[in-house]
Amino acid sequence: MFRFLTAGESHGPCLTMIVEGLPAGLAVDSAIIDADLRRRQGGYGRGGRMKIERDTARFLSGVRHGKTLGSPITMQIENRDWVNWEESMSAAPGEAVFEPVTRIRPGHADFTGAMKYGHRDIRNVIERSSSRETAARVAVGGLCRQLLNVFGIAIQSHVLAIADVGYTTPRQFTPDAYSAGIWEAVEASAVRCADAELTEKMIARILAAKHEGDTCGGIFEVVAFGVPIGLGSFSQWDRRLSARLGMAMMSIPSTKGVEIGAGFAATRETGSHVHDVLRHGEDNRWHHLTNYAGGIEGGITNGEPLVVHVGVKPIPTLAHPLPSVDLASGQNIDQSRYERSDVCVVPAAGVVGEAMMAIVLTEALLEKFGGDSLDEMSKHYRSWPA
Amino acid sequence: MFRFLTAGESHGPCLTMIVEGLPAGLAVDSAIIDADLRRRQGGYGRGGRMKIERDTARFLSGVRHGKTLGSPITMQIENRDWVNWEESMSAAPGEAVFEPVTRIRPGHADFTGAMKYGHRDIRNVIERSSSRETAARVAVGGLCRQLLNVFGIAIQSHVLAIADVGYTTPRQFTPDAYSAGIWEAVEASAVRCADAELTEKMIARILAAKHEGDTCGGIFEVVAFGVPIGLGSFSQWDRRLSARLGMAMMSIPSTKGVEIGAGFAATRETGSHVHDVLRHGEDNRWHHLTNYAGGIEGGITNGEPLVVHVGVKPIPTLAHPLPSVDLASGQNIDQSRYERSDVCVVPAAGVVGEAMMAIVLTEALLEKFGGDSLDEMSKHYRSWPA
Amino acid sequence: MFRFLTAGESHGPCLTMIVEGLPAGLAVDSAIIDADLRRRQGGYGRGGRMKIERDTARFLSGVRHGKTLGSPITMQIENRDWVNWEESMSAAPGEAVFEPVTRIRPGHADFTGAMKYGHRDIRNVIERSSSRETAARVAVGGLCRQLLNVFGIAIQSHVLAIADVGYTTPRQFTPDAYSAGIWEAVEASAVRCADAELTEKMIARILAAKHEGDTCGGIFEVVAFGVPIGLGSFSQWDRRLSARLGMAMMSIPSTKGVEIGAGFAATRETGSHVHDVLRHGEDNRWHHLTNYAGGIEGGITNGEPLVVHVGVKPIPTLAHPLPSVDLASGQNIDQSRYERSDVCVVPAAGVVGEAMMAIVLTEALLEKFGGDSLDEMSKHYRSWPA
Amino acid sequence: MFRFLTAGESHGPCLTMIVEGLPAGLAVDSAIIDADLRRRQGGYGRGGRMKIERDTARFLSGVRHGKTLGSPITMQIENRDWVNWEESMSAAPGEAVFEPVTRIRPGHADFTGAMKYGHRDIRNVIERSSSRETAARVAVGGLCRQLLNVFGIAIQSHVLAIADVGYTTPRQFTPDAYSAGIWEAVEASAVRCADAELTEKMIARILAAKHEGDTCGGIFEVVAFGVPIGLGSFSQWDRRLSARLGMAMMSIPSTKGVEIGAGFAATRETGSHVHDVLRHGEDNRWHHLTNYAGGIEGGITNGEPLVVHVGVKPIPTLAHPLPSVDLASGQNIDQSRYERSDVCVVPAAGVVGEAMMAIVLTEALLEKFGGDSLDEMSKHYRSWPA
Repeated sequence: MFRFLTAGESHGPCLTMIVEGLPAGLAVDSAIIDADLRRRQGGYGRGGRMKIERDTARFLSGVRHGKTLGSPITMQIENRDWVNWEESMSAAPGEAVFEPVTRIRPGHADFTGAMKYGHRDIRNVIERSSSRETAARVAVGGLCRQLLNVFGIAIQSHVLAIADVGYTTPRQFTPDAYSAGIWEAVEASAVRCADAELTEKMIARILAAKHEGDTCGGIFEVVAFGVPIGLGSFSQWDRRLSARLGMAMMSIPSTKGVEIGAGFAATRETGSHVHDVLRHGEDNRWHHLTNYAGGIEGGITNGEPLVVHVGVKPIPTLAHPLPSVDLASGQNIDQSRYERSDVCVVPAAGVVGEAMMAIVLTEALLEKFGGDSLDEMSKHYRSWPA
Repeated sequence: MFRFLTAGESHGPCLTMIVEGLPAGLAVDSAIIDADLRRRQGGYGRGGRMKIERDTARFLSGVRHGKTLGSPITMQIENRDWVNWEESMSAAPGEAVFEPVTRIRPGHADFTGAMKYGHRDIRNVIERSSSRETAARVAVGGLCRQLLNVFGIAIQSHVLAIADVGYTTPRQFTPDAYSAGIWEAVEASAVRCADAELTEKMIARILAAKHEGDTCGGIFEVVAFGVPIGLGSFSQWDRRLSARLGMAMMSIPSTKGVEIGAGFAATRETGSHVHDVLRHGEDNRWHHLTNYAGGIEGGITNGEPLVVHVGVKPIPTLAHPLPSVDLASGQNIDQSRYERSDVCVVPAAGVVGEAMMAIVLTEALLEKFGGDSLDEMSKHYRSWPA
Repeated sequence: MFRFLTAGESHGPCLTMIVEGLPAGLAVDSAIIDADLRRRQGGYGRGGRMKIERDTARFLSGVRHGKTLGSPITMQIENRDWVNWEESMSAAPGEAVFEPVTRIRPGHADFTGAMKYGHRDIRNVIERSSSRETAARVAVGGLCRQLLNVFGIAIQSHVLAIADVGYTTPRQFTPDAYSAGIWEAVEASAVRCADAELTEKMIARILAAKHEGDTCGGIFEVVAFGVPIGLGSFSQWDRRLSARLGMAMMSIPSTKGVEIGAGFAATRETGSHVHDVLRHGEDNRWHHLTNYAGGIEGGITNGEPLVVHVGVKPIPTLAHPLPSVDLASGQNIDQSRYERSDVCVVPAAGVVGEAMMAIVLTEALLEKFGGDSLDEMSKHYRSWPA
Repeated sequence: MFRFLTAGESHGPCLTMIVEGLPAGLAVDSAIIDADLRRRQGGYGRGGRMKIERDTARFLSGVRHGKTLGSPITMQIENRDWVNWEESMSAAPGEAVFEPVTRIRPGHADFTGAMKYGHRDIRNVIERSSSRETAARVAVGGLCRQLLNVFGIAIQSHVLAIADVGYTTPRQFTPDAYSAGIWEAVEASAVRCADAELTEKMIARILAAKHEGDTCGGIFEVVAFGVPIGLGSFSQWDRRLSARLGMAMMSIPSTKGVEIGAGFAATRETGSHVHDVLRHGEDNRWHHLTNYAGGIEGGITNGEPLVVHVGVKPIPTLAHPLPSVDLASGQNIDQSRYERSDVCVVPAAGVVGEAMMAIVLTEALLEKFGGDSLDEMSKHYRSWPA
């Protein structure tokens, strides 16, 4: 019965999240969530807003003296920019004396949102379609992460490519693919890339795009370690963990591609090259010699690291805007509009990817193990041999 | 309130599907569903089973005199092979005197399913994890397709690559990307590829793999034409149509990658090259000059064709099996087992992809337009300008 | 992730049910389900149909050699009357040369269903709105009952009143309210009433109504014994077990009232008289001195028997029909129509009530204890002290 | 896709609600919600808290310049008492130096909640199980009410009985059952009863209970006027509007009984007396001569007023507490504890009942009519003849 809703406009007073169904008795620390929020706000190529906001999440329900109560958890993140928007974004009825936004930006929700909801002021769309919403997900993921940690599950992300700059050797899908120290290097990199040299090149690529009034996308990888065997199911299409991961990752704004394990590369090889040989050790543990499957076989986790690649298109807001249409006049125009924006959000998107992975695993874990308190859930978990 | 469940083992008496929430008064024809079932069974590289089965769906509820009643629709597909399995797969209690299946096949659900459900006989796993289950989805999709047709929505699929044999020029994302006649060519091709020359090469590739006791995966594309503007939403993460498509496609067995529109290719370009310029015509219609977005902006359909690419890994069942483990003894073994299997299912998987696309669009259409009868739904739809 | 769908028209070929989410390894016996189906078909006051049908459920998936596989379970109940309706209820397209049903019966779904779904032939409505559909629920409940039995949970029902004939003393809500032997007496009674004298009177009441061309309703009670403490939650409105029971019971056709525990009688007493004093015994067990609450406090089970009363209105199909309207002409008419019907279904409805109780408890049990196999679920359950 | 979550402890900083799926462009006024919140706080027999709190709801998202955006709506209600509880209810980790609550109150969630969630301090339970939570529902209902108003649907409630004091004549189920002026009288009554004399007696009854250190329950009625024909369905058990109303009403804390229309009284009459004769007028309108069905036939609304009766048990918190158990020692004790409480909440519960009715109807309306903006939904609605 794990579920959550997020809410909040980009320039409204705050983002709000309600999370239902976490067990009681889980120690949670808002500082861990804030750390994730900061990681989301970092990364080379972010615009001015990141300096305005310094997101912190506050618990408004469901937590007492540092532990969950079993009741719904409310978290809230203030929008520090709100003071400048109080009138323009006011909930109170009244004459809107503000200039509506009418120039449609290609690639955004400007057009589709205005059509769907019948809005004439595109601001009514972009306040929610804005990727500011992903901060809410990161907070929810940061909460889930603290549950997962208790069960020895850790989630990391890093950047594989920015635009056309990325690893030139194919990804390895072996047990030792993630060497010691890689994640520290990732956290130290301005673009969340473990390779120092590549980091330099990626920064240069972002800078070049910026100089051209252009933007960059890229590819990030999310990995979950310590996932037990047996999450997900082939029993019904919507219970496959692969399906749920596909949904979670594809829901990240600007995402256009998702791979599990070797992904599209696996389609080019024959079967004998891409299936992971299973071994049963003398220690009674199961392991695979390789991990092309990315930790999922038959829609169920197989005990190896869960590996997902996510492709993010370049940000649609360009300093040198593309031609478009004015919603008010219906006239084609030479230039869309520019609104303060980042040049590249791939590193940040990776942090959102971690959150979505944490959410998917929390749901799957609670489905399998049940339990209303952490104690109860832990007892159930400990009785699971896999 | 559209929902459905599928059921059925691969060698049980039948597959059964219940579909809830389609409007009353929709003309449905089981022949259209059977045509899709046949398309799923075709394609070069299929094994012996396809000759045994000639799937047909029978309505057992919800349809009277060729029209839906508004009540749940039951469809059933007989497994013609059942006569040979009646004892082995009997539901009746009794001593199981059959040799259990214990040699784990790498890449299948054999291991994960046995662990999850506590099965010692892998047959108890593979009967449901088998891709036979996708026939049920194709039937559900074939039903949905008949609703979509009423609203002018058509869904097609074709194969882009088999193993390393595929189109060598990048995919075009332009309005005229799908020229007249392409779909007839696809249906005529043994591998569901529009290009006759490529068809030959793909067949050769499959044949080569077969000779080596090996298998092939590949990539297919699904396209939906005539989709109205406004399906899906950015309001909540799980309402994005991109997310739902991601889930639907990733749920297809063996799928390891999903792209919407230009997908990963879009990550390598800068923003000015991959966003689709919008035009408002004198005919008061909206259209985009290109379709890199694959028909979705901000999680909402934009009126252009919905374009999805799906990457399918090679079939795990190899005639020359990989090393593995015996579940009964826990011993590592030199060779897994071989069970009658196909060499390549990519063309068939494309037909499953069409079904999943039809399912996603049906759900989205019913959410937006509501209506308990086709008449009512049609009235609602006609009042929608986009 | 427990869920199910039922389907099937009253005079179609069969009823079909798909049940998803039961653990693997559960021994299930269709004979137990058939016994419930027979109990539903019994009871004094049933019409001719009950002699035609002798319902039996057949497993078509999800069960092998008497044990669940973890995959979706399909059950099917044939409609033996189908042979007489094959043409009239055929799914195949074609001219409907049958006389449509157009005289609306008051109290049925005839009017509301025709309006909702745009049907001109009321048969298109009543085939599904018919209480034949409850046989499907009884089969699902009969499956759930076999899971509950493993955990020591037993569900019973009996009739408290037929029309104005019922127990004259107020119900007792004490630990010894259900004396030994009561359920045997219930099963032996033609109206499922434990009191032999009252049984006579109830039969006489039904007979009297029949002679007047009239019908009877009544009240039944469902009780679940052995329910663990802790099912349901106050955390969110829709997680209260009371809410779910209210939904399940109110969903039974013709139901107009539902009480938990002392129900409306509790509203007439002051607080000091209707709350159940809790005791903690030397055996470390918890028990209540009374059970006015009917086993639920704060939306959560408290370990006492779950007690629900359900009020069923008289059957709307009268041998002496009420005035009504003809749907085809829109004219008011003096008499609705009569279609073969029962005079009283309260005893049968009680069996349906058992099924709905079993369904609600199965869902709640799986949410709390999780587990993909019966072994795993049992381990979890055994670690629960309450 | 209408859904909502509520959150908040009774003495935490606030209650928070997120509502997803209302159409864009709906004019909403927090003053209307606040009026409902005040009505919930009124009623003779409320305790001291009602003087502390004067609830007001604040929009934190989803509304701009008085109209909905289509994005999720956040509302927040401050707990004015929070200043006194900041330390005791702090979310921050730290030594809890507060005396835990350990004396279990019979009839509350104290016991079941502590067992379920493994809490040793009953405060961790009662902060959420408190009926303070219903203020959140009233706010959500107050929002829904503003949508329903646009479609001519109005919802009212009044009190039928307090303890053993109530209407002595049976309820009338006729078209003119609700005479002009009744609702004004209800709003003017301190116990929300339309009859002035009965109001006096009810107040006296509450006062008498208070003097005895005791509490009262009672019965309220909720009525929805202007409901279109065709909401709900018999197609699947959980789509019956009766089932959803049963769930919604039974979810109200302390509810032990729910009736639709004539309810249990209908079980005592024969069929010819309790079914509502339908007439088709010359104005082409449909109406029923009576309304025993309470506006629902076959699980679907029939155009008549929706009528529901709800029975609420007396408040469990007694000034003269019952015997109980101390959770810490496990010892039986002579007296449970007393915590500031009301004597009678039936009038307030009626206002909660209105909210739940509004929520159920909003969901049903959106399912049937769809629509992403109020304009679109209105077009759909206007094309509906019933």
